[in-house]
Amino acid sequence: MHSSHFGPLIKNAWYLAAWSNEVTDQPISRKILEQDVVIFRDHLGSVGILEDRCCHRAAPLSLGEIVEGGLQCGYHGMVFNKNGQCVLNPGESTTPARMRVKQYLAVERQGFIWVWMGDPALANDAEILDFPFHDQAAEWPFQYDRYHIHCNFMLLIDNLMDLSHLAYVHRATIGGAPSKQATATMTVEPTDTGVKFLRWILNVPPAPTFVKAMQFKTNVDRWSDFEYVAPAAVLQWAGAIEVGRNAQDNRNQDGAYSMRMFHAATPETENTCHYFWSVANGYRQDDPDAATDLFNEIVPTFKEDIVMLEAQQRKLEREPKRGMMPREQDSAVNLARNAIERLSSERP
Amino acid sequence: MHSSHFGPLIKNAWYLAAWSNEVTDQPISRKILEQDVVIFRDHLGSVGILEDRCCHRAAPLSLGEIVEGGLQCGYHGMVFNKNGQCVLNPGESTTPARMRVKQYLAVERQGFIWVWMGDPALANDAEILDFPFHDQAAEWPFQYDRYHIHCNFMLLIDNLMDLSHLAYVHRATIGGAPSKQATATMTVEPTDTGVKFLRWILNVPPAPTFVKAMQFKTNVDRWSDFEYVAPAAVLQWAGAIEVGRNAQDNRNQDGAYSMRMFHAATPETENTCHYFWSVANGYRQDDPDAATDLFNEIVPTFKEDIVMLEAQQRKLEREPKRGMMPREQDSAVNLARNAIERLSSERP
Amino acid sequence: MHSSHFGPLIKNAWYLAAWSNEVTDQPISRKILEQDVVIFRDHLGSVGILEDRCCHRAAPLSLGEIVEGGLQCGYHGMVFNKNGQCVLNPGESTTPARMRVKQYLAVERQGFIWVWMGDPALANDAEILDFPFHDQAAEWPFQYDRYHIHCNFMLLIDNLMDLSHLAYVHRATIGGAPSKQATATMTVEPTDTGVKFLRWILNVPPAPTFVKAMQFKTNVDRWSDFEYVAPAAVLQWAGAIEVGRNAQDNRNQDGAYSMRMFHAATPETENTCHYFWSVANGYRQDDPDAATDLFNEIVPTFKEDIVMLEAQQRKLEREPKRGMMPREQDSAVNLARNAIERLSSERP
Repeated sequence: MHSSHFGPLIKNAWYLAAWSNEVTDQPISRKILEQDVVIFRDHLGSVGILEDRCCHRAAPLSLGEIVEGGLQCGYHGMVFNKNGQCVLNPGESTTPARMRVKQYLAVERQGFIWVWMGDPALANDAEILDFPFHDQAAEWPFQYDRYHIHCNFMLLIDNLMDLSHLAYVHRATIGGAPSKQATATMTVEPTDTGVKFLRWILNVPPAPTFVKAMQFKTNVDRWSDFEYVAPAAVLQWAGAIEVGRNAQDNRNQDGAYSMRMFHAATPETENTCHYFWSVANGYRQDDPDAATDLFNEIVPTFKEDIVMLEAQQRKLEREPKRGMMPREQDSAVNLARNAIERLSSERP
Repeated sequence: MHSSHFGPLIKNAWYLAAWSNEVTDQPISRKILEQDVVIFRDHLGSVGILEDRCCHRAAPLSLGEIVEGGLQCGYHGMVFNKNGQCVLNPGESTTPARMRVKQYLAVERQGFIWVWMGDPALANDAEILDFPFHDQAAEWPFQYDRYHIHCNFMLLIDNLMDLSHLAYVHRATIGGAPSKQATATMTVEPTDTGVKFLRWILNVPPAPTFVKAMQFKTNVDRWSDFEYVAPAAVLQWAGAIEVGRNAQDNRNQDGAYSMRMFHAATPETENTCHYFWSVANGYRQDDPDAATDLFNEIVPTFKEDIVMLEAQQRKLEREPKRGMMPREQDSAVNLARNAIERLSSERP
Repeated sequence: MHSSHFGPLIKNAWYLAAWSNEVTDQPISRKILEQDVVIFRDHLGSVGILEDRCCHRAAPLSLGEIVEGGLQCGYHGMVFNKNGQCVLNPGESTTPARMRVKQYLAVERQGFIWVWMGDPALANDAEILDFPFHDQAAEWPFQYDRYHIHCNFMLLIDNLMDLSHLAYVHRATIGGAPSKQATATMTVEPTDTGVKFLRWILNVPPAPTFVKAMQFKTNVDRWSDFEYVAPAAVLQWAGAIEVGRNAQDNRNQDGAYSMRMFHAATPETENTCHYFWSVANGYRQDDPDAATDLFNEIVPTFKEDIVMLEAQQRKLEREPKRGMMPREQDSAVNLARNAIERLSSERP
């Protein structure tokens, strides 16, 4: 059992390394699971992820540039292909096979670039999380971003697993209404890879965001459908339907406010993470303003979370093993923690 | 015996935590003796000082807000009263008694908020330093401020105990005149709780500050009457009287330039402190300009001290146990150090 | 044998501490070989280098000022001469001989101030590096500067010993032309105190810098003549002559573009250094624009080096003992490393 409130860094797992669109003609330096890597798209368009350290003199390859054959070190000009092999050794009589840098497996799909930081022999790309909505831009137009957060990645997952914080952290944006939030019902169930929950708040005034999107005239029934998939992703489907339309039996009806979010919290270090997220609107899909408005509503909400997460992190860094005091509403938090500890013990 | 030049952090003692006027409708985060605390004034006007860490998920309570009943955590809405007890646990079926955060004893008097960071069983508020002049605004109108200084609190006390630094550190403000400063006479005596000294410089041209305040036309006799009270306070009475008026026999005569200062150096960490100070003018008490002018004279003087104290601290941090070389003029410094070591051994 | 890629800090050696012109009427604080020193010019014009810590209360002497007799501490006014002896102790009955601060040997010559940080009994100023060109301003007018670099000093030496980086780090300034750079011939020989190499690139288009200086109309033969002198200096003579004029047999002919550089990388800490450099033009010596133009060409080149050196340092700080992979072109680098390790074992 992991002995601190910081989630374990599991090497043998797939993590989101970058959005596809981030990796263009300039190599990117990024730290993932305590390792500095360089992410680049070679001259043929394939993505490579290598240790960000030239084997010759330890210069960061991310200071180099893309050339025919791969990524050229900016110090003495050695070129490495996406497998990490040196393919050009300028001014030298030979290019020894031992001139190579460590490669990490990379898979690009659905707008994501995934990386496997552990033993390549254990990697299976069938385990990569599927998020088909990114392939369905007509139905689910999406926008996305990435934040660097100074907190252990599991604090971010915990935050998503206990929505009772909406009434306080987000009182000025999507939350508030503490008395209504306190009436939420929640069904929670463990899964093989994490935990799912469905949270309903019935007969509640629609949030200003909802009204702006859908012109609701009455109270709504509002749901939050979340799934945590260990180690580091959360899939979210949220929405609202006017009261009296059997929302709980049919969430896919016309006139529903419906949105999907993807969250991934890739550990940078034990104390920091990269937070990738996308949001897709399942309504007014032909209206680009709908996507932009939704994105612009979400951003300040996450800024509120970041303030709290980084403050919580500072406290925990001083005493990472000191006890917390769970509440009833932490049931999904606890199941998420169980899932990552299970994965950690299975992938030593 | 303490083995470094940094004064010991004695928990079982009263320290100045805040000026009363600092604590309004927003909770304050402050670190005292290495502990993060939140200082707040509850809905009834009473001051509470709690550990700045919610028992639920370690969020800083100082990010919360004052509500009916106490201080509400900004993460999930639990409310704690000034004793640290949870009195509201939103959305939960119970509010267990074990839901509480650590409380520190707080006493508000004379414009000060005092805190006891140690064992509550040992606390006796009769030991709190008395500074009656803050209650006598007609005779001693005062202004005050607080600085954060990157030095051990005892370096600041040492600085106040050896006024020979005035000629050099404050050459541009209240000091200078090294040849006159070198003629100062000083009587020093230990007290039960610290040390007192009285320093006279006779027949000296009045400092520009004195002239501005009192229109002196002749030389003056000038005194500095200081008392250190362990662990962390210094009381100062300073003044000047025209020569030939028996100043040494009667400092309370009309026409005297007379001012009182209160100094408290509350340890934040071993290497940093909060410097609280007030200054009161015992002349022209009906003229608000007199108080403001005096305050404005003092501020740049303290800035000069801070430059030196922080530079000295940087040296000592590298080698805290390396010897210094006391001079004759360090007699009050040495007695102050004896007093805090004595207190430290009595309050383990 | 030193076990990391960071060069050893050898105390018993002469290091460049400052340019003569840096030390005027204000004392300078500088860290050299992990020691804080104050460098000052006393009232008689002699340079003193003392530990930057008053013996009384550890205040930095660099906050003081020059007075008759030496350097006066800004805290309580003690004055120390250039040998570190207290010569004025204000307001005290005696000035004991034990009131002194540690002195370091200082030698000023050729526009340099050299310091010996080790055992004074081992110091011999005949070992100080000779750079006579600074005394020949008519033939070699020079300009100079000093940079603080966050890298171990030997990374900077290594960089100067392998000029194959010019094609990549300096592609935008003095380098570029990777295919020509790859044809360079290099003769390398160890010396008693370091290593020398001579590098030629024949029949190459003149760099824009050369054309600006000399109006070359044809290709040139270009040389780089470098000598490393342990622990921390590099002497450079570089130039170019039009093809067909037997440059390799006579580099001192009229019409040659010829410049001399002095480099010294004084360790500040294991991870940082002070980079002192001068550049002298051996052409158009009567034209002040020639010196200024050359200086202005060099500056951006060093900025390019600094980016790479500091990036390399960050990598090595994480894993200072992890292997690098030398190339054939590292022969002078390897001999320089041998030389400093030899010096380190001789001067324990």
